[in-house]
Amino acid sequence: MKGTMPTMKDVAQEAGVALGTVSKVFNGLPVGERYRVKVEAAAKKLGYQVNQYARGLRAGKTFTVALIVPGLDHPFFAALAQHTCTALAQRGHRMLVYVTASRPDIEQSCINMVRQNKVDGIIGLTYNPLELDESVPFVSIDRVLGPNIPCVAADNFGGGRAAAEKLIELGCRRLAFFRTGSASPSETDRRGDGFEAVCQRQGIPCHSIRLQDGDGMNAFKEFIHEHMSGGRSEIDGIFCSTDLLAWRIQHLLAEEGLRVPEDVQIIGFDGVRRFGGESLYCSTIVQPIQRMAETSVDLLLSKDRSNIPALVCLPVSYAPGGTTKE
Amino acid sequence: MKGTMPTMKDVAQEAGVALGTVSKVFNGLPVGERYRVKVEAAAKKLGYQVNQYARGLRAGKTFTVALIVPGLDHPFFAALAQHTCTALAQRGHRMLVYVTASRPDIEQSCINMVRQNKVDGIIGLTYNPLELDESVPFVSIDRVLGPNIPCVAADNFGGGRAAAEKLIELGCRRLAFFRTGSASPSETDRRGDGFEAVCQRQGIPCHSIRLQDGDGMNAFKEFIHEHMSGGRSEIDGIFCSTDLLAWRIQHLLAEEGLRVPEDVQIIGFDGVRRFGGESLYCSTIVQPIQRMAETSVDLLLSKDRSNIPALVCLPVSYAPGGTTKE
Repeated sequence: MKGTMPTMKDVAQEAGVALGTVSKVFNGLPVGERYRVKVEAAAKKLGYQVNQYARGLRAGKTFTVALIVPGLDHPFFAALAQHTCTALAQRGHRMLVYVTASRPDIEQSCINMVRQNKVDGIIGLTYNPLELDESVPFVSIDRVLGPNIPCVAADNFGGGRAAAEKLIELGCRRLAFFRTGSASPSETDRRGDGFEAVCQRQGIPCHSIRLQDGDGMNAFKEFIHEHMSGGRSEIDGIFCSTDLLAWRIQHLLAEEGLRVPEDVQIIGFDGVRRFGGESLYCSTIVQPIQRMAETSVDLLLSKDRSNIPALVCLPVSYAPGGTTKE
Repeated sequence: MKGTMPTMKDVAQEAGVALGTVSKVFNGLPVGERYRVKVEAAAKKLGYQVNQYARGLRAGKTFTVALIVPGLDHPFFAALAQHTCTALAQRGHRMLVYVTASRPDIEQSCINMVRQNKVDGIIGLTYNPLELDESVPFVSIDRVLGPNIPCVAADNFGGGRAAAEKLIELGCRRLAFFRTGSASPSETDRRGDGFEAVCQRQGIPCHSIRLQDGDGMNAFKEFIHEHMSGGRSEIDGIFCSTDLLAWRIQHLLAEEGLRVPEDVQIIGFDGVRRFGGESLYCSTIVQPIQRMAETSVDLLLSKDRSNIPALVCLPVSYAPGGTTKE
C-alpha cells in the first residue's frame, strides 16, 4: 500500500461493502449506521483521505461558508468571527474570512469572489447596498438586505429601551443619545428608537445626535459646552450606540472635569471585553454574540428553506461596567 | 445565453483565441499580456465565472491558505488574522480560519482536517507538539517546529533587551520579569532571555518568575508582599511577557496602594490597542504584526522553496503607554 494512495475502491473492498455505499458515506448521504461504521473503520485503517475537492464536485457541496466582516481588529467582529468559526466546525463546515473595511467596492468584490468560489453560503455583516443573487444562501447580520435574505440581530429596540429605563431608574432626568457609524439603514438604528420611545413615554427630555465619523468628537465637546450651567453638566445620562463611543465619551468628559458616573452616567452597547475576556469597557447592553453566530449558521445551513424568517432578534441584557451607579 | 452558463469554449470563441489560452489565463499560467486582456474582457462580457473547484482540480492549486490560531478574541490573534487575510487577498488567495483554544487535540485535528481539505499551505500559531508531514507547506508563528518549517517571530530577544534598557534609563534599579503561558518552548521565551542578559551585564538585580495559568495572580501578590519594605515596593521596574499580563499587574499594584508609574514602572510586550486601534494598554514592546503576517504569507507562497530560512525575526519598537515615566 505504501507509495500509492488508497482509493474509494480499496475502502469498499476492505469494508466489504459496495462502492456506492462508500461514496454515500463520504458525501454525507443517508446510509445504515453499521455500514457507516464499517466504511469509516476501513478508511481509517487504510489511511484514506477524502479529497474534498472531488467530494465537492460530486456532491455539489463544499462544506465551506464565507464570513464577510468589516475587519477582525474590532472586538465585536473578532468575537463574532470566533463564534461563527466554532459553530461551523461543530456542524462539519469550515470558514473562509473576507475583510472589507466597510468599503462598498470591497464588499461587492467579496460577494463576487465568494460566488466564484462556490461556497455553500455566506454570512455577511455589510454596510452598503449590494447586488446579490439567490444562487448562494445568504444570512445578513444587523441589516435587512432583501425578502429572501434572513437577518440576524440583537434585540436592538429592546436594548435601547432597557438603557433608558436603567438610566432613569438610576436617577437621570436629562438624557442624550449619541450614535456614530454608517448612515445607511440598519437594525442598529433601533437602539436609538427604543431609547427615545421610553423617554417620550416617561416625559424625560432627550437629545438625539448623530456624530459624523471625522469630527464627531469635536461636535460632542461643543454639545457638552453648550449644555453646561454653573460648571455642571445639564445632561446627567448618556446612551451610546456602541461601547467604543461610550469609551471615547467617558474620556472626553474626564477632560472636561466631569466625573463618571457621579456627574454623568453612561451606557454603551455591545458588551465587548478588554483582551476578549477581561472587564467591560463601560456599563453596557450586552449583545448575545455567540447566539447570533449560532443562529446565523443554523439559518444558513437549514435544509428547509421554505420557512426562513426575515428577521430574528435575539435577547440582550444590561451589565454594569463602572460608568453607571450600578 | 440566458439560462445556460457560459463555458470556457464560449469565452475562447468570444475572445478569438485557442481554448488552451483561456485555460492558461484562468489557471494563472504565463500567457501574452494581450491574450490575457482579451480573455478577461470576453469572460467579463459573457459573465463567465471560474469554477474554483474545477480550477483547483486541474491546476492542483486551491488558492486557499489555512490559518490556525488559538482564537480570534485576543487582540493579538485578531490583528494577526486581519493582516494575514489582507496579505493573502492581495496575493490572490483566500483564508480559512481554524481556532484551537490552544488545546493539543484540537490543534492536531485542525492539522488533519486541513490536510484533507487540500489547501495550498498552512500558517499556524500553535502551542503543542504536532505530527506534521511535508505534503503541505507550513509556516509557523513564534515556534520552531522542525527543519523544513520556517518560523516567523518578532525579535523577542531584542525586545526583552530594549525593555530592560528602557527601565534602567528611566531610573529603575530593582527589576522583575514575569511571564505566563505555555511551558513548551517558544521563541517568545527569548523575551525574558534578552531582559536578563541586560540586567546581568549592567549588574542590576532581577527576579525572573513564571506565573502559573491558574493562581498566577495570587503568586504575584505574594511576591509583591514579600518585596515590600516600609510600605514601599523594593521592585521599581517590571517587565511582562504580554500586554495582558502587564494590564493585570497594573491593576493588582493599584489594589496594593502602589502607584504606576510613580512607584513601579511597567513595560509589556505585544503593542495591542483598545478596540483594535485606540490607545495602548500599557508602555510596551510593539510587535510588527502586519509585517509578521506579510512575511509568513510570502514565505508560504514562495515558489523557490530551496532557500527558505529556518527563523525570521522582525524588528520591534518601544512605545510609551502610561505605565512608565515615558
